[in-house]
Amino acid sequence: MNTTLERVLIGGEWRPAEATDSFRAMNPDTRETLPHVYPVSTRSDVEALLEAGSAAASALEDAGSERIASFLEGYADRIDAAKEQIAAVASLETALPVSPRLADVELPRTTNQLRQAAAAARDTGWTMPTIDTANGIRSFLGPLGGPVAVFGPNNFPLAFNGIAGGDFAAAIAAGNPVIAKAHSSHPRTTQLLAEEAFVALQQSGLPPATVQMIYRTSHEDGVWLVSHPLIGACAYTGSRSAGLVLKAAADGAGKPIYVELSSVNPVFLLPGALQERSEALAEEFHGSALLGAGQFCTNPGIVVLAAGTRTEAFIADLVARFEASPVGALLGAAGVRGMETAVETLCQAGASLLVGGNALQDSGCRFQNTLLRITGKDFLADPARSQTEAFGNGNLLVVADDEGEMVRIAAAFEGNLTGCIYAHSGDADNELYGRVTKPLRRRVGRLLNDKMPTGVAVSAAMNHGGPYPATGHPGFTAVGIPAALRRFGMLECYDNVRDNRLPPELRDANPTGRLWRFIDQQWTQDDVVHEAIGARS
Amino acid sequence: MNTTLERVLIGGEWRPAEATDSFRAMNPDTRETLPHVYPVSTRSDVEALLEAGSAAASALEDAGSERIASFLEGYADRIDAAKEQIAAVASLETALPVSPRLADVELPRTTNQLRQAAAAARDTGWTMPTIDTANGIRSFLGPLGGPVAVFGPNNFPLAFNGIAGGDFAAAIAAGNPVIAKAHSSHPRTTQLLAEEAFVALQQSGLPPATVQMIYRTSHEDGVWLVSHPLIGACAYTGSRSAGLVLKAAADGAGKPIYVELSSVNPVFLLPGALQERSEALAEEFHGSALLGAGQFCTNPGIVVLAAGTRTEAFIADLVARFEASPVGALLGAAGVRGMETAVETLCQAGASLLVGGNALQDSGCRFQNTLLRITGKDFLADPARSQTEAFGNGNLLVVADDEGEMVRIAAAFEGNLTGCIYAHSGDADNELYGRVTKPLRRRVGRLLNDKMPTGVAVSAAMNHGGPYPATGHPGFTAVGIPAALRRFGMLECYDNVRDNRLPPELRDANPTGRLWRFIDQQWTQDDVVHEAIGARS
Repeated sequence: MNTTLERVLIGGEWRPAEATDSFRAMNPDTRETLPHVYPVSTRSDVEALLEAGSAAASALEDAGSERIASFLEGYADRIDAAKEQIAAVASLETALPVSPRLADVELPRTTNQLRQAAAAARDTGWTMPTIDTANGIRSFLGPLGGPVAVFGPNNFPLAFNGIAGGDFAAAIAAGNPVIAKAHSSHPRTTQLLAEEAFVALQQSGLPPATVQMIYRTSHEDGVWLVSHPLIGACAYTGSRSAGLVLKAAADGAGKPIYVELSSVNPVFLLPGALQERSEALAEEFHGSALLGAGQFCTNPGIVVLAAGTRTEAFIADLVARFEASPVGALLGAAGVRGMETAVETLCQAGASLLVGGNALQDSGCRFQNTLLRITGKDFLADPARSQTEAFGNGNLLVVADDEGEMVRIAAAFEGNLTGCIYAHSGDADNELYGRVTKPLRRRVGRLLNDKMPTGVAVSAAMNHGGPYPATGHPGFTAVGIPAALRRFGMLECYDNVRDNRLPPELRDANPTGRLWRFIDQQWTQDDVVHEAIGARS
Repeated sequence: MNTTLERVLIGGEWRPAEATDSFRAMNPDTRETLPHVYPVSTRSDVEALLEAGSAAASALEDAGSERIASFLEGYADRIDAAKEQIAAVASLETALPVSPRLADVELPRTTNQLRQAAAAARDTGWTMPTIDTANGIRSFLGPLGGPVAVFGPNNFPLAFNGIAGGDFAAAIAAGNPVIAKAHSSHPRTTQLLAEEAFVALQQSGLPPATVQMIYRTSHEDGVWLVSHPLIGACAYTGSRSAGLVLKAAADGAGKPIYVELSSVNPVFLLPGALQERSEALAEEFHGSALLGAGQFCTNPGIVVLAAGTRTEAFIADLVARFEASPVGALLGAAGVRGMETAVETLCQAGASLLVGGNALQDSGCRFQNTLLRITGKDFLADPARSQTEAFGNGNLLVVADDEGEMVRIAAAFEGNLTGCIYAHSGDADNELYGRVTKPLRRRVGRLLNDKMPTGVAVSAAMNHGGPYPATGHPGFTAVGIPAALRRFGMLECYDNVRDNRLPPELRDANPTGRLWRFIDQQWTQDDVVHEAIGARS
């Protein structure tokens, strides 16, 4: 055992990993290797996680939602208190700026999510209690009975972190323990978060293995984890290739898995909008496209416009803005290689470079701000290749011959998280809006008007999801409470069960007087009312 | 082309199949081959189904929910009107009795489901409109954008038929076209239903390919269908082996698939219940176990009891009842072979035969009413093998040494649709009830008390689902409205979209004044209320 390795959080304690290998993170801004050494866990660690997580799942059922809510709130408070250190470390590991990005936006969003999840756990309305008094049948969503494995991505070290992000908060609030896998690009950030989670957990009285965390496993052991009989479910955000391997394994074992894989988030700029406010659109797109060096799941990767002089002027404006903008560092060396490959693929599909297109040869992980252009005809000739995701500061402009081609392009997109349409503020674009929306609507989870997709509000009405291959199922969202919690519930039905044996949410008396329940086809906060036998109807 | 082949319903017309093979159904009561000859469709039929279904999906979006509801109601009326013929034909193909089973129970249940689905389509509350006024984000469930393939099972020729059953009704009510695959054991029943559906469809004004039907394909073409880019989703009820092949294909293509595969539906008879009402329990179990020759998804396949003289008396009572009961025909020759294999497997696991155990050597598809017995110790030694489903009139009694062993047995079950616990009507069994429920609850979709599982009410609170391998996902139910509809919806989110461009359900004004919507965290039937700018809070 290498005693210099950082410890993993398994079974309610920080303990040495059973590791045969190790890794260190890198500062992408400088390509400097960072000091801490992290273990690659072996199968025996994964087994220990599953056994402790399974026992915790059972114990958690009896812990009560108030304790779960208190844990989430205590954890949020601790993250807020440690904000400076967490944001500084996350910045070192990701090259994302401390301010405003990490300290002022992402961290507050993270603790907001935890607090919203706490409120949902306490309210319990996410369980959708449904009562059929005539048949004596009652149902709601309960926990899964096993731990949820959460694999966070590289691009949101806090708000999507496996041990602090939306999937984590949702799984815990729904009453399930979490087994978090840190992303290898920001282990120290994850470690700091896990330390706060651990202290908050001890103070909450929840089972000690409610939250566990390791840094890395082999691919084989990851597959073994998500398809194990003791696992409850899995949530994964990251690269499509790795996600599909996990998905196949979990699907084959009948385990729910929620994956967020890729998205190019098409933006349609209709002629009336361009005529009305070309410069404002260029400014808005440019800001959204290069936010976080373009490394947003909802980055507006592809813009579709109709050919014409206004479009040429718009493109010239964009080129100038991309050229003049500072180049942000990508999250790591793999991001640079990914950009190189994507640009090459897009050029093979017929795109040409307007600006950028190459890695920067200084010490950090940087790629030139890049804009490509392709004709609608070329796009439609090989739509799969033409919508290759360039994850980072590269975007593709599709110039259609006419409005009919714009509509055909809309129908050629794969499943995406978002799709945007910018239209004239009056009625000038109404007819085309309808024609573009019709095919686009079924291909995107969230349809935006006159707004860039990079803001993802933590809203009950949000959909951060979409048809495959954006995610694995078009009915679920990873962001938004209470909907995100429902992914981690099993439908529990009670048929002819005595009132005192029912969960509180399903008894005659409304447990809080405020819980919304669907009783006899009506949503109500009332108690169940039993009609007296023989009463007149 | 063989002109004697029955026609298939593709693209809005009854037309000859592109077939290379054919089959005929059998009367399981006599093993007599029935007269109609049905085609095995080739890939070109499947392609035509997908193309027409995809176009219908798009057209259906504009048809409106009122027309969908009218179609479902018109179809239900036509099935009711054709009841005598449909029940007679279904009886001939399944050996299930016309009365009460088919004409008085299953057919009314089928039309009831269609009418409940119509009401849900009209009400649109199943879409769960969710509005966040502060963020300007609104979402609800819309159709999938492609046809839903429905594969019905052999055991409910009407209520689970691919073209008339619960999955069909739910998929249509959610705004999706259906591609139905008839079960090969009852093609004529399915043909009659499809003829009624077709007439009702023509009268409704819905797109003509909203409902399509073929009889059979090769396994390869079935796999191709459920994983095709144009498919919306798939619902399958049937054998585990075939279902898992379809599931793997659909999962791999990122297509939602809902499978109902198998279930032994454990029943725990606690000592107090046996002491209190042994004879009543025997009567109740015997009736449920042999209903429909035991061919219910929710058949109480395994009974768990504690060793003792009362248990021996109860078993002797059951044996007498099983011996004295008439032997119902199974649904086909495969059912007889399946029973033979299951009995053999259970005996290998240590079970012994109490009564029956062999196929009957007369002309029909019959297997002796069968009871087996196994010790708790043997059950726990190989729980996977010991819970082999004997689909038909065969049931296994597990006699545990003591209460602790009963609890361990409860924890050894795979995922099931249902689990029942019979307890003393007073408090005598309370402690054991809690211990058995704790592990059983996470392993079954529906937990029943003092009630057999074979009745599946079409209730909003029903769960006809459960953890794998009962189904593919523990959060969904195939029976119960509105929940069953939500399986066939995609989450559509609108961000910053103008009111007049929103679907009616998401506009400020409640479209009916009665639609339940989740507005700013409250369920309400009100319109969206915009606070005046500058108004006092």
